[in-house]
Amino acid sequence: MIRFFEKAPYAPVEYCYEVEEILYKGKSRFQEIMVVSNPHYGKMLILDEVVQMTERDEFFYHEMLTHIVLHSIPNPRKVVVIGGGDGGVVREVLKHKSVEKIFFIEIDEEVINISRQFFPSVSSGVDDPRVEIRIMDGAEFLAKQKASDIDAVIIDSTDIIGFARSLFTAEFFRNVKNCLTDQGMFVTHTESLHFHKDMVIEIQETLKEIFPVVDLYTTSIATYPGNWWAFAVATKGTSPREIRNTFQIETNYYDDEVHRQAFVTPRLYEKLMHGKLKW
Amino acid sequence: MIRFFEKAPYAPVEYCYEVEEILYKGKSRFQEIMVVSNPHYGKMLILDEVVQMTERDEFFYHEMLTHIVLHSIPNPRKVVVIGGGDGGVVREVLKHKSVEKIFFIEIDEEVINISRQFFPSVSSGVDDPRVEIRIMDGAEFLAKQKASDIDAVIIDSTDIIGFARSLFTAEFFRNVKNCLTDQGMFVTHTESLHFHKDMVIEIQETLKEIFPVVDLYTTSIATYPGNWWAFAVATKGTSPREIRNTFQIETNYYDDEVHRQAFVTPRLYEKLMHGKLKW
Repeated sequence: MIRFFEKAPYAPVEYCYEVEEILYKGKSRFQEIMVVSNPHYGKMLILDEVVQMTERDEFFYHEMLTHIVLHSIPNPRKVVVIGGGDGGVVREVLKHKSVEKIFFIEIDEEVINISRQFFPSVSSGVDDPRVEIRIMDGAEFLAKQKASDIDAVIIDSTDIIGFARSLFTAEFFRNVKNCLTDQGMFVTHTESLHFHKDMVIEIQETLKEIFPVVDLYTTSIATYPGNWWAFAVATKGTSPREIRNTFQIETNYYDDEVHRQAFVTPRLYEKLMHGKLKW
Repeated sequence: MIRFFEKAPYAPVEYCYEVEEILYKGKSRFQEIMVVSNPHYGKMLILDEVVQMTERDEFFYHEMLTHIVLHSIPNPRKVVVIGGGDGGVVREVLKHKSVEKIFFIEIDEEVINISRQFFPSVSSGVDDPRVEIRIMDGAEFLAKQKASDIDAVIIDSTDIIGFARSLFTAEFFRNVKNCLTDQGMFVTHTESLHFHKDMVIEIQETLKEIFPVVDLYTTSIATYPGNWWAFAVATKGTSPREIRNTFQIETNYYDDEVHRQAFVTPRLYEKLMHGKLKW
């Protein structure tokens, strides 16, 4: 049996997957890209030895990263997606009929191309006319925005090391704020509450220096080490807990009940932020 | 580096842990028992190559298995704990001042003894005068109960294979029902919604044939493969979603907000039970 040992940063446990077939292995300018097949998960996308996505359960992450904010912003029109070269977030954003324009900013064009080839059901939206692909650093893209006309900025980066680090600085968060509309929202994954609690807290604290409203929600992602995956939302005043769009979109997991339940409870949030939870 | 490869049943991913030291390794009549130390988790209890508990995060599982039902039953007095030889559930049950008697039924005495030696903070309650230890099969113990005077039956078994299987049959569930008071509750773990969805559903369906009220709640356990850990509750009529005891106990994670949020939402439950979720 061929096995793949995941080298996830900061994780105190290594995940080991059976590999039926190595479908692709190559190096881009930025990272090693691999596509393998697994008996349970189907095809898996692996970047620098870390699992990014699997055919079987990618919808948990992509739906939860996208639909919480897009249901809280009244009629989102312009959305910026940074990272997520597989196209999963773009596919979910396009389900919102009010969206007129998606700036899809990916630093590594190879990820988009490999996903078009191996994950057509995930990358199905990237060639939609509403999508403008820009191959560049997301931090640079946002730094150049002049108007405050973006409804949502969604970060779907790799783990918070290496080139993804530029998307988690105070300077970057200030640039995000400048380009957002008054009811706009910023959302990013912030790793696992089980394994990277300090990082989750640090990002919350940094965002709070810049945004009036910062919140935290979680969902369980089987292929991300630590599993209890945390997402930070930041806004200029509106709460992401309230659903403001009532239209129905087709999803597998996300719905309005899931939306409301995903947010970390007030008391747990307080305990987390004040270091009162021992683990 | 010494590494331990977990052989969790049914899991499509193997977890691999760094081992600093093997503190104990032996065979009981029922299983292989191992205690190792890990830089992140501290001491870990491993039965038949499956991680049961770690010093660092055992509270998530023990609190969530115990306190949901014990906060929903008005003034629980008599509790049966089956399995959980480490004593973690017993420790949590003893926090409820109304409890007068715990029948602690463990098939493998060795697990209790090893835990007394290596996990004193977990097994701290097993020698409390309110605890009656019986070394026997939990299914046999319940089959012999005549009165309906048990307030809660809590199953803390190993994975649902081998000798633990007797705790997941319709016959066993009927015996549980017979020994419960009218407001009594049954709770058991039922593996992971990510990896063992069909098993979670099967146990829910079997319980529904016997109990008028069956419910499902989850929490994230980092060291159980699939992580999104599911618990089944069954009662003669009262809902486990309602908190009926207002007293305060000391916990690290569980509280009334966590209680309410832990239950699977009605729509997700419906979709699960009717096979409408694809994963």
